[in-house]
Amino acid sequence: MQKHNIAIIGASGYTGVELIRLLHNHPAVNIKALGAHNQAGLEAAQVFHHLSVTKLPKLQSVETIDFSDIEIVFCCLPHATSQQIIKNLPPHLRIIDLSADFRLRDASIYKKWYGHTHIALELQQNAVYGLSEHYRNQIKHARLVANPGCYPTCALLPLIPLLANNLLNPDGLIIDAKSGISGAGRSVAQHLLYNEISEGFSPYNVNQHRHIGEIEQEINAFSNSLQNIIINFVPHLVPMRRGMICTIYAKLQNGVTFPQARDILTQRYEDEAFIHVLPANITPSTHQVRGSNHTTINIFQGSDANQIILIAAIDNLMKGASGQAVQNMNIMLGLSENTALEAIAMFP
Amino acid sequence: MQKHNIAIIGASGYTGVELIRLLHNHPAVNIKALGAHNQAGLEAAQVFHHLSVTKLPKLQSVETIDFSDIEIVFCCLPHATSQQIIKNLPPHLRIIDLSADFRLRDASIYKKWYGHTHIALELQQNAVYGLSEHYRNQIKHARLVANPGCYPTCALLPLIPLLANNLLNPDGLIIDAKSGISGAGRSVAQHLLYNEISEGFSPYNVNQHRHIGEIEQEINAFSNSLQNIIINFVPHLVPMRRGMICTIYAKLQNGVTFPQARDILTQRYEDEAFIHVLPANITPSTHQVRGSNHTTINIFQGSDANQIILIAAIDNLMKGASGQAVQNMNIMLGLSENTALEAIAMFP
Amino acid sequence: MQKHNIAIIGASGYTGVELIRLLHNHPAVNIKALGAHNQAGLEAAQVFHHLSVTKLPKLQSVETIDFSDIEIVFCCLPHATSQQIIKNLPPHLRIIDLSADFRLRDASIYKKWYGHTHIALELQQNAVYGLSEHYRNQIKHARLVANPGCYPTCALLPLIPLLANNLLNPDGLIIDAKSGISGAGRSVAQHLLYNEISEGFSPYNVNQHRHIGEIEQEINAFSNSLQNIIINFVPHLVPMRRGMICTIYAKLQNGVTFPQARDILTQRYEDEAFIHVLPANITPSTHQVRGSNHTTINIFQGSDANQIILIAAIDNLMKGASGQAVQNMNIMLGLSENTALEAIAMFP
Amino acid sequence: MQKHNIAIIGASGYTGVELIRLLHNHPAVNIKALGAHNQAGLEAAQVFHHLSVTKLPKLQSVETIDFSDIEIVFCCLPHATSQQIIKNLPPHLRIIDLSADFRLRDASIYKKWYGHTHIALELQQNAVYGLSEHYRNQIKHARLVANPGCYPTCALLPLIPLLANNLLNPDGLIIDAKSGISGAGRSVAQHLLYNEISEGFSPYNVNQHRHIGEIEQEINAFSNSLQNIIINFVPHLVPMRRGMICTIYAKLQNGVTFPQARDILTQRYEDEAFIHVLPANITPSTHQVRGSNHTTINIFQGSDANQIILIAAIDNLMKGASGQAVQNMNIMLGLSENTALEAIAMFP
Repeated sequence: MQKHNIAIIGASGYTGVELIRLLHNHPAVNIKALGAHNQAGLEAAQVFHHLSVTKLPKLQSVETIDFSDIEIVFCCLPHATSQQIIKNLPPHLRIIDLSADFRLRDASIYKKWYGHTHIALELQQNAVYGLSEHYRNQIKHARLVANPGCYPTCALLPLIPLLANNLLNPDGLIIDAKSGISGAGRSVAQHLLYNEISEGFSPYNVNQHRHIGEIEQEINAFSNSLQNIIINFVPHLVPMRRGMICTIYAKLQNGVTFPQARDILTQRYEDEAFIHVLPANITPSTHQVRGSNHTTINIFQGSDANQIILIAAIDNLMKGASGQAVQNMNIMLGLSENTALEAIAMFP
Repeated sequence: MQKHNIAIIGASGYTGVELIRLLHNHPAVNIKALGAHNQAGLEAAQVFHHLSVTKLPKLQSVETIDFSDIEIVFCCLPHATSQQIIKNLPPHLRIIDLSADFRLRDASIYKKWYGHTHIALELQQNAVYGLSEHYRNQIKHARLVANPGCYPTCALLPLIPLLANNLLNPDGLIIDAKSGISGAGRSVAQHLLYNEISEGFSPYNVNQHRHIGEIEQEINAFSNSLQNIIINFVPHLVPMRRGMICTIYAKLQNGVTFPQARDILTQRYEDEAFIHVLPANITPSTHQVRGSNHTTINIFQGSDANQIILIAAIDNLMKGASGQAVQNMNIMLGLSENTALEAIAMFP
Repeated sequence: MQKHNIAIIGASGYTGVELIRLLHNHPAVNIKALGAHNQAGLEAAQVFHHLSVTKLPKLQSVETIDFSDIEIVFCCLPHATSQQIIKNLPPHLRIIDLSADFRLRDASIYKKWYGHTHIALELQQNAVYGLSEHYRNQIKHARLVANPGCYPTCALLPLIPLLANNLLNPDGLIIDAKSGISGAGRSVAQHLLYNEISEGFSPYNVNQHRHIGEIEQEINAFSNSLQNIIINFVPHLVPMRRGMICTIYAKLQNGVTFPQARDILTQRYEDEAFIHVLPANITPSTHQVRGSNHTTINIFQGSDANQIILIAAIDNLMKGASGQAVQNMNIMLGLSENTALEAIAMFP
Repeated sequence: MQKHNIAIIGASGYTGVELIRLLHNHPAVNIKALGAHNQAGLEAAQVFHHLSVTKLPKLQSVETIDFSDIEIVFCCLPHATSQQIIKNLPPHLRIIDLSADFRLRDASIYKKWYGHTHIALELQQNAVYGLSEHYRNQIKHARLVANPGCYPTCALLPLIPLLANNLLNPDGLIIDAKSGISGAGRSVAQHLLYNEISEGFSPYNVNQHRHIGEIEQEINAFSNSLQNIIINFVPHLVPMRRGMICTIYAKLQNGVTFPQARDILTQRYEDEAFIHVLPANITPSTHQVRGSNHTTINIFQGSDANQIILIAAIDNLMKGASGQAVQNMNIMLGLSENTALEAIAMFP
């Protein structure tokens, strides 16, 4: 199989090392360069001991990477830094950016949530939002794919078919989200210590999380409603490494029945390799998807006639980050979408 | 200090052993008998190895317990079994029942949720719902206290002051609840194995959990609304031993402001030893209460004008079960309410 | 690539489902049948929810499996049951048995540790002990491979090169072993509940674990010493899902130096795909191997001249069970040894 | 009861906050001051959210503490810093130091393990090693108690009675130790992040841990052997918050029998409130002691005649640190030794 050279910038973080895990045996990919500013010069195995079992390029600063024969770059940098780096990448590169920098189409919304003016608006204009199942055609030809956030991926997948078919009441949308700790990355902070996290559970950034802007953008993009939809969003930290659940409370439009909603959801995803609407009454669980690119979804009836409860489960590092990034790369390269993503969940 | 003799029936489960932990050093209590049907004849230390460090009565069947000099019985049996046992207890005993058997005042509601006809309705009539802070006066003189469920305790404490003061819109009440695994008790079931639970997160009994009946009963009891309030309730299992969070989405009545709601909540609990409304923007977390009888609560603004988000944290075995049971015993005996409950959370 | 049909008997346990995970995408394998006595008739996805994302044969009882076009059988049954089933399998099948039934070459030793007389001694005679790196040639042509236990694999890999080269004093060999909980399988027992395991650590079967017989058999098989070597062995349960560490205390023969021992170890494994002697002072850790078939090993100096400390890390379900079973199948089929085992550890 | 004023210096760490947990309800203690250099001026509840439920002094720098009416100071600072601070404390204070600074009686040994010259040797001369059960009489009158390390406490308690009675062969002593993560304190380091620790197990500082000096000092102090005893010591990190197990491999002197050793151990501790030699074959486990000051111990036979295996379990923050510190304070003040330490383990 023809090998495409790729580079990973920001390889010393968790989404970076997850890309290494997925790509080091991808039959059509050759990992050509690993960028990591602060660890430049180190072997990858010095930064992640489990990498000592395989051969990888040394970590290097972005400036020293020879991009001439590289085709695709995965960018795993923090927001703000990401736009600075991507702005200066050679034009022949196709880029999959895992940061938030190119997800928000409206510059003022970006500034509202991220607190600074965007410095690469010209790139943002042509960026494609990388929710694979819903932007597949645009991703195929994109130069720059803005890989979605984990919470948005998990919340949007169950919502979009219902919104797009005008089944949902635009009012009262509530997303109660729960994430494993790897979502916080490898940043060294007291509140992320083992002793501060394990055996505890807590909400954080109550209704103020930056992913709200991204979720609302896409909800309104897919909604047929004229009304601007806003959400209530409370994320919580679960004492586990990987996994994410969104429990979504919504109301059906008057006249829409629960079976109709269920049918629309099932039909929309029945041909998708990674999205699984479960049989009635089987609850999504992160154990169903841990270590895999799969998403499990179900829909339940609420207490009053129109109320429904949507639940979705993903692995935040896979479908919520690096797995979807590889899926997007496969789309961009015209490969089978599940290449190197065939793994089912690791259980136990 | 005068010693009151007590017995614990169902001492081989987690709420039973939590009562032993709390009561073995209670200055006004003497643990006189421990009932455990299947383990009758064993030392407590054979059933729970950590009890080998202290002296306790042997486990025995209920029939063999001499209740003549016992004053208070804690009943930690499963529902249905509990009513059978309690029905036949000598009349001089005062009883704190930790099962669901005497919590529901309406026999038909009991049958709806628990699937069988109640066989001790004459007792249920005089049972007092043991949410300590809100039924204190009745508990004081009660013969039979129906100790609340963990989810109801966690959900009701933040809601009751707002309902009682007519601040909440009766529509659209959503309770998204998360519990540590000890809530499932010591029953030996595949889905409770370490390998099935750890590193995973999942909803269960979506909108069908038995505690819904109990929560709705108390919500309507305290509400000033003429309308029957119903809730949407989704519980989730968190891979941790103890702790519970309820994230509650509600709407204020038109004309009620967020500061008003916050004030009512703060004022109601400012003199309570165990209920703490946190400063603005500090989020409740189970680590704040683990191993203690405390509850932490906060209120947050939602995305649209009337929407609020209430969050409460308890230890499900303490304020959610055995801690509140001891608090109720203290009330019944006229003791200081926090006797033997002075512990702050164990952290780390 | 030519497809070999395989069957997994005992597919409802953890080693069975790990084989499914590894083999469902093995390019040269077709999973033809899944045996599971108690769950016969169920879909695999009903027994393990995460399997709903892929197509698999239904579970069936062994008697109903059509073995005519099956080439290899993986047997994941408990000991004693395993020998009964294997005894009656058609002679054309090649078998990889993950139980302890065919590991011990001496029938009296088998009876000593497993408490009953072996009923298939004729098969045991031709069974090959499946420690891949040290029995590769025999495995290639074996009809029946006795896949090693997890503790023996982890303890023997660092010891064998030193024993085979006569570097170790036969006295005073101590193996202090630590295992994740999946090693206990999916059996439903109180002591394996989440609440009994998490946040705790304990030794068990102190110097009485059944794997002692297996370890001593192989130690003496590879040792050049005339003396029968016995070990002290204490296993411990670690509150984690997967992973195993053996910390081994041994003494070098007089005159043997630490660098000599290190060199022998390094040289023996330098061409092995799955065995990695780490650079000096880097400690093995289960995170280096979780979800992979890799083993990491290091050797450290003890406090007195001859004392050494060997440490090895494996994933108990991979190199300690199903991973090594697939490695052995690859050897038997003449495939590249790491086919379908290319994964590096999943971290985080 | 008469109240003794105490101060805790280094109150923002885990041993400090554990002292707060134990002492805030101690009937004979009044927490008068909390020292914390970097957080001076903050409320304790800002540093540990779970402290918001109780009243405590503000954190302040040591220089600003008025020690005039304080009787006892607990010092929870890092080594080196501790000696600097204690050197300058007013002479009327009695001090319990939880650091390593005053544990080693030989200044050269201190320098060997801690890498710098001790600057308060005059104090070290009069320091008493605070292993409560074995230095009780000296502790009673000490001005400065050097509270033992967690590993030394756990290793020494089972060894001392056997050494003191000359039952152990001085050769070949091996201590394989396992600790929960709180032993590492609240220091913010990458290797202590939740994602780096959970679901993994690893040895560290193989045979190079600083506690070796302390263990060897006390072993030789209690041994009747003329020979200087050295140990092999490998500590491991267990993915749990609290708890410690030492698995100790030793040889009995020729002529000493296993029952003799067991008897000596049992007799030595039968009157101790916190040390429990378990019945034969019951294994110590951290769950037996979590959150309590108790120690459980057992002795097992090894594979050859003289070999024994000693196992001890403690809570590293309790008997391994703050619990023993309070026990020592109780001794110093002539109080019942278990005052404020009556808690049995918190299980589940």
